[in-house]
Amino acid sequence: MANVLRNSAKFGFSGVLSQLSIHSRHGRECVSPCFSLQQRNNSTSPKIKVDLDNSTGVAVLRMQSPPVNSLSLDFLTEFCINLEKLEMDKSCRGLIITSTLSKVFSAGLDIMEMYGKSPERCGEFWKAVQEMWLKLYGSNMATIAAINGSSPAGGCLMSIGCDYRIMADNPRYSIGLNETQLGIVAPFWFKDTLVNTVGNRAAELSLELGLLYSAPDALKIGLVDQLVPEDQVLSTAQDTMSKWLAVPDHARQITKSMMRKQTIDKLLSNREADITNFVSFITKDSIQRSLRMYLEMLKSRKA
Amino acid sequence: MANVLRNSAKFGFSGVLSQLSIHSRHGRECVSPCFSLQQRNNSTSPKIKVDLDNSTGVAVLRMQSPPVNSLSLDFLTEFCINLEKLEMDKSCRGLIITSTLSKVFSAGLDIMEMYGKSPERCGEFWKAVQEMWLKLYGSNMATIAAINGSSPAGGCLMSIGCDYRIMADNPRYSIGLNETQLGIVAPFWFKDTLVNTVGNRAAELSLELGLLYSAPDALKIGLVDQLVPEDQVLSTAQDTMSKWLAVPDHARQITKSMMRKQTIDKLLSNREADITNFVSFITKDSIQRSLRMYLEMLKSRKA
Amino acid sequence: MANVLRNSAKFGFSGVLSQLSIHSRHGRECVSPCFSLQQRNNSTSPKIKVDLDNSTGVAVLRMQSPPVNSLSLDFLTEFCINLEKLEMDKSCRGLIITSTLSKVFSAGLDIMEMYGKSPERCGEFWKAVQEMWLKLYGSNMATIAAINGSSPAGGCLMSIGCDYRIMADNPRYSIGLNETQLGIVAPFWFKDTLVNTVGNRAAELSLELGLLYSAPDALKIGLVDQLVPEDQVLSTAQDTMSKWLAVPDHARQITKSMMRKQTIDKLLSNREADITNFVSFITKDSIQRSLRMYLEMLKSRKA
Repeated sequence: MANVLRNSAKFGFSGVLSQLSIHSRHGRECVSPCFSLQQRNNSTSPKIKVDLDNSTGVAVLRMQSPPVNSLSLDFLTEFCINLEKLEMDKSCRGLIITSTLSKVFSAGLDIMEMYGKSPERCGEFWKAVQEMWLKLYGSNMATIAAINGSSPAGGCLMSIGCDYRIMADNPRYSIGLNETQLGIVAPFWFKDTLVNTVGNRAAELSLELGLLYSAPDALKIGLVDQLVPEDQVLSTAQDTMSKWLAVPDHARQITKSMMRKQTIDKLLSNREADITNFVSFITKDSIQRSLRMYLEMLKSRKA
Repeated sequence: MANVLRNSAKFGFSGVLSQLSIHSRHGRECVSPCFSLQQRNNSTSPKIKVDLDNSTGVAVLRMQSPPVNSLSLDFLTEFCINLEKLEMDKSCRGLIITSTLSKVFSAGLDIMEMYGKSPERCGEFWKAVQEMWLKLYGSNMATIAAINGSSPAGGCLMSIGCDYRIMADNPRYSIGLNETQLGIVAPFWFKDTLVNTVGNRAAELSLELGLLYSAPDALKIGLVDQLVPEDQVLSTAQDTMSKWLAVPDHARQITKSMMRKQTIDKLLSNREADITNFVSFITKDSIQRSLRMYLEMLKSRKA
Repeated sequence: MANVLRNSAKFGFSGVLSQLSIHSRHGRECVSPCFSLQQRNNSTSPKIKVDLDNSTGVAVLRMQSPPVNSLSLDFLTEFCINLEKLEMDKSCRGLIITSTLSKVFSAGLDIMEMYGKSPERCGEFWKAVQEMWLKLYGSNMATIAAINGSSPAGGCLMSIGCDYRIMADNPRYSIGLNETQLGIVAPFWFKDTLVNTVGNRAAELSLELGLLYSAPDALKIGLVDQLVPEDQVLSTAQDTMSKWLAVPDHARQITKSMMRKQTIDKLLSNREADITNFVSFITKDSIQRSLRMYLEMLKSRKA
């Protein structure tokens, strides 16, 4: 993060950076939080793999879009389609989200979706980000994030959209809504979700400073619920899920809705304004210039 | 709890169970949280004993309705009448609530008030539950729960309605709003009171999973304020009360109202709808069938 | 505090005491929380000293109004003028507030502003208290309280109006909104700020009992963020500020506004009513009698 900041300062960067991860021409993996140069993968191979165990009613959704599971429009669309399928499948009661990649859960929103794109396209992208959160935070399934790597910005949003968070006990992995560090502002529904998870004061500090928390620090403030050795993240998620599924679905679902409905309704009733906000911000000349400079910096660093 | 769940599953039970305790034909005490078979006691002997010490201005309200201080309509009515008397008695400034029974503070709402009863009667019962909470959460007295035994569901609601909670330091005693475990949903004002006490995230986990916390775990999440050896629960409550009464009444009362008024007003302005909701739910054929099966299961277990 | 309470009881005091500090004829320093007799200083020497380091963009505001930095109308006016100047100075990005006095940060509101004054003057005073909080809680600067002494009542309000709190690690220094202990009620915006800082339950306990927390206890409940040795309070604040200023101003400012706007707007839209409330309370005969008795008691104690 310190490096990112130094570079940001050095390059006079002040734009939309932290929700983003970007694609390099070289595809070298970069697990430093938030950003990476990543080979754009235009293949039609799925970015997400879902396995539903009919005997347990538990689906495992594996994000497998190297190098860092960037949340591109394609990725988000695939994610939402999978989520919707599972939601409508009565045999599926629980969902575990994890990553097939080494060291990273998800690096967050894909910067390439915001650079040099038309307002229409940017709006479509932002709508998909909203959709991902709405579907996840309001899911009728019991949802557990099996966080087996770093999870900044959009990756953190996905994690706190679940019912429970189990993270690899590795101090080199970090998680947080670090948007502010990079000159942008987490929208109100990111903020509301964080406040609901860690309380007002921890959220205030976290968002004003754009903090990324190491796994142990994330546990301390309640940003994740449990740390386990890296090779036990998924199995612990499975064990934990069986406890969640011991609760009658109907009562759990109504209770979850009672806890989260107000936060969800706030976005639903401001959805268009939130998209307009995002698009008008991201298409500003100054922001686009910042994005270009940032992209060039990252590319030259990789060269 | 695990047993209750297993049995619930086994008997296909999905109804209103956790706010409830029920009466057996045999009166054997059962301190397993939430449920018990309890001899229906039609005697007119008071279920509640109140001692007001005029020298200190502190009343001790002892719940003495064996075996588990079930919150029946009679019990709640007696409770509210006593509370109202104390509230109007200017010499009474502080109230300590405790139990005369071994191992249990209160097992919560009485299941028999909801089985085979007319909608009118069910509505009357639910209104009494509301009344108990409204009177307690909004009391002008300083109120301390001296929790000398388990306190699930309605017993937990009564505890978190007080200003301060002192619990016996016994890991076999548990406390929590465990409704969800048993197929029902804690209403919004149970939820609001819990959120006000332990914060949003702990309340979310607690309610979605219907968790019962052992006394030490309850202390950790702030569901109770203090643990003391079992034989010191009441004396510690008395000592603590003297600190509360050192604060000028008027300022404490206005401050308490400032903290709690919004939560109370929310029920007051939705009271009829909340009763209608409860009655329409509890009188459903499916719920009544579940209640009957559950009662039969408990009776046969006791036989 | 115990002494204050004993004296309050002894003298039948039930009025506005805790937000207050008062001036003695002898100027003997009194660091017991909330109250002090303090020589009224009519000199025109500034009560506040501001040093802005143009190389860092950080201003240090030193409160230097002996003996206890009472928040009089003059003091508050000077404070607000300085804050406004810094706010408009583009070269100033961060503000550290500290005290030049030994053992006290600020003892809170000046009781003499409320005794024997006209309603108009009382209203003017209260408006200045509101203004101090509005300017501080909503400041675009990064603000750090370097709390190098006790900080009850209004001093606590000033502290929790900042973005971050560093306190001297001295268990004899205390901090808290202790108004209730002295018969008065912290207004809703004091309460809201405290809830935002320590959460609902800790705020409830704190305000109902009018608790003052020793520095270590204040850290435990999150009322301050960090304790350091007394001689390192200011240097740690400087170091911490450099981390805050590493975050892009614009993003930090919008994020801060997103976190605090609702709380600020609540006072803005109730400002006149809040003044009317205060004035009608403080000018009551009973309150004025209490103030006079309290003043006489303190003066005789000093004699």
